[in-house]
Amino acid sequence: MSAFRDDGAAALDWVASYLERVHELPVLAQVEPGAVRAALPASPPDEPEPFANVLRDLDEVLLPGITHWQSPRFFAYFVSTGTEPGVLAELLIAGLNQVGILWRTSPALQELEEVTLDWLAQLLGLPAGLHGHIEDTASTSTLVALAVARASSPGRRVVVCSEQGHSSVDKAAKLLELEVRKVPVDDAFRMRAELLDLEGACAVVATIGTTSSTSVDPVPEIADRCEAEGVWLHVDAAYAGSAAVCPELRDRFAGWERGDSVVVNPHKWLGVPMDCSTLWTRDPAAFRDAFSLVPEYLRVAEEVASLSEYSQVLGRRFRALKLWAVLRCYGRSGLQERIRLGVSLAERFQRWVEEDPDWEVVAPRPFSVVCFRLRGSDEDNERLLERVNATGEIFISHTRLAGRYVLRLAIGSFRTTEEDVRHAWEVLRREAATL
Amino acid sequence: MSAFRDDGAAALDWVASYLERVHELPVLAQVEPGAVRAALPASPPDEPEPFANVLRDLDEVLLPGITHWQSPRFFAYFVSTGTEPGVLAELLIAGLNQVGILWRTSPALQELEEVTLDWLAQLLGLPAGLHGHIEDTASTSTLVALAVARASSPGRRVVVCSEQGHSSVDKAAKLLELEVRKVPVDDAFRMRAELLDLEGACAVVATIGTTSSTSVDPVPEIADRCEAEGVWLHVDAAYAGSAAVCPELRDRFAGWERGDSVVVNPHKWLGVPMDCSTLWTRDPAAFRDAFSLVPEYLRVAEEVASLSEYSQVLGRRFRALKLWAVLRCYGRSGLQERIRLGVSLAERFQRWVEEDPDWEVVAPRPFSVVCFRLRGSDEDNERLLERVNATGEIFISHTRLAGRYVLRLAIGSFRTTEEDVRHAWEVLRREAATL
Repeated sequence: MSAFRDDGAAALDWVASYLERVHELPVLAQVEPGAVRAALPASPPDEPEPFANVLRDLDEVLLPGITHWQSPRFFAYFVSTGTEPGVLAELLIAGLNQVGILWRTSPALQELEEVTLDWLAQLLGLPAGLHGHIEDTASTSTLVALAVARASSPGRRVVVCSEQGHSSVDKAAKLLELEVRKVPVDDAFRMRAELLDLEGACAVVATIGTTSSTSVDPVPEIADRCEAEGVWLHVDAAYAGSAAVCPELRDRFAGWERGDSVVVNPHKWLGVPMDCSTLWTRDPAAFRDAFSLVPEYLRVAEEVASLSEYSQVLGRRFRALKLWAVLRCYGRSGLQERIRLGVSLAERFQRWVEEDPDWEVVAPRPFSVVCFRLRGSDEDNERLLERVNATGEIFISHTRLAGRYVLRLAIGSFRTTEEDVRHAWEVLRREAATL
Repeated sequence: MSAFRDDGAAALDWVASYLERVHELPVLAQVEPGAVRAALPASPPDEPEPFANVLRDLDEVLLPGITHWQSPRFFAYFVSTGTEPGVLAELLIAGLNQVGILWRTSPALQELEEVTLDWLAQLLGLPAGLHGHIEDTASTSTLVALAVARASSPGRRVVVCSEQGHSSVDKAAKLLELEVRKVPVDDAFRMRAELLDLEGACAVVATIGTTSSTSVDPVPEIADRCEAEGVWLHVDAAYAGSAAVCPELRDRFAGWERGDSVVVNPHKWLGVPMDCSTLWTRDPAAFRDAFSLVPEYLRVAEEVASLSEYSQVLGRRFRALKLWAVLRCYGRSGLQERIRLGVSLAERFQRWVEEDPDWEVVAPRPFSVVCFRLRGSDEDNERLLERVNATGEIFISHTRLAGRYVLRLAIGSFRTTEEDVRHAWEVLRREAATL
């Protein structure tokens, strides 16, 4: 074990040093496709190598190919922060190497998962009594929820979401052989509930915080319709859900407590390292009906339903441990503070854009993502995006809204300060001037 | 960052100490259902707590509820070893917190995943040119492969496997709305290929190393039939596949190179911590046809297909890093040594059982799992299992073969020595004497 202690100290030092200098590294990897592959041997080693070689090649071979999600100047997609307690919890998770199959294969894994999901539901203001479990990502959470909806609604093969629904809805529908019906959105990119057609629908996916613009669908109206017509309501709050830790932001979540299932990704905006997607339901029996299947070699005396009976996969990692570590080491107040800072930084950036006549904000900003563009052509904005990202100073991504190419500045890293956001604005204006 | 260094040193010391003493802990958690939950607060903290509290409660609250998969005396299900390089790689993975969505979101993640899958294919003697990627578990790998098979075979809605196929086939079939046709097995629990009925079949799942007895289906005959009738062949070698690093064991894998898809779980018998399931295919185009779907906000200039286009989920962890670390720190020779030791220990245990007239071996043993029973009733064996596991000295599981209740001793931990296996045999005989 002395090798483990020594190698571990080196690995820990590597991570600590990495986090200390990550703000200096080019945020978007600046390598060409194939460069990392070309720098790696074509065959594995025949003989054992010291762990130090792994760390050496991590620096020399892999690091140029890393896009730094941990950088305070990562503003693309939705941001993910691997916080310090979350990172260290992953070390503990791997050290324990639990494989959750049945309750008995890790009672602590199962019960901590249940408890932390209860804790998180409380923090987010979700109703008591929901059944929660953890999936890898929202793609899986939505797939699982829609599978339950399909199983609960024989003969109904349509899933309804807005034009701004996430691509995982389409992907899940393809796997589940459901038709996707897209409802038009209003000029704030929210589902037009009055156009909801539930004919043949087994589920509606309402989104709080859509991927392009973070718009919020009118969940109360959608829930009314779903309840009236007995249609499963899945609420996708993968990104925005974490913001519900702040009571002053809860108005954006009106009606989500009426969802038959709700997904939030703590790996997006709550400091938990990738991956951790939390899924709650009011109807656990429907989940068990859709998924439970216990073969002989897993039958045991305990009268405890395993979490694998609520989902597609059999074996699960001890993800609850990292969620637990983050919830404890930040506490309600620490999480609120980070969410509030993210929202206020986005507010500030939005103001700078609005005040500059060369730029425009192109969507309402309910959370921490600003959709904006240089006044000019789509091509100008596309070129600008590539130039900005090529500097390595910041990394932003784009989308298309109402037919126009749009830039997105997504704030959410627990490490991002006002200086980082100010720098982003400087880089954008500087590069725009070169067009 | 000094808190991170200090907390990290404490977490590292916790893991090192844990691995040093894990052989002394009761292997199967000895708690009652609900005990862990009852020892946890019902609500999350309002204020931040130090990371030290997490470590304290890990010891005091969670540890009694941990079933020690890292113990050298864990002999249940299929064993998983979180080796030291694999554990430390998880620390690096979390520190980097990569989210693989597109190539550009982490070129190193994608290219290392491709390279390590090539490396592993070489180590296992799989043919060159396969396309490989990593899934969480074999449940997902099999689901994904069967989804591709279904998409490639319009109108055919039957998946065929033996009576001994894994429950994940049934679970995937349920999600994919396929009918499962079970082929009878011979007295060695191998699929009777002459009874294969491929009418309406989109896929056959052939298993090398079934979950109950580790039997090996006659893959060459199955492949002949699949090729003749244009049916997708998925080879499930989730447990046993790792053994193919040893050339002398390759006869058991005859024909697997003809699989349209092949799954092996390095988190089972190759030292990679949970989770890491590797999936190869000869037909990557069929995977992309089934899964590729790129929304506007992910469209970029690079002509590089993302790994998310080959599977259901969008975002992936940097699992390749732990596979890479393990392959390098063990090398081909180190992995062969561990597999050979596991097989030879199982061989020895089998001999002890065979030489004792009170016991019987009930299935051939192609790898490192021995299926055996006390000569007596099913109830005797069931009581014996519970007594043995209640001692906490070892943990074994059971199955049912040819209608009889059967005990399984699964060897596979890199930490298990002959003394551990000898102790298991002593505990079994000692507890049998008390019946």
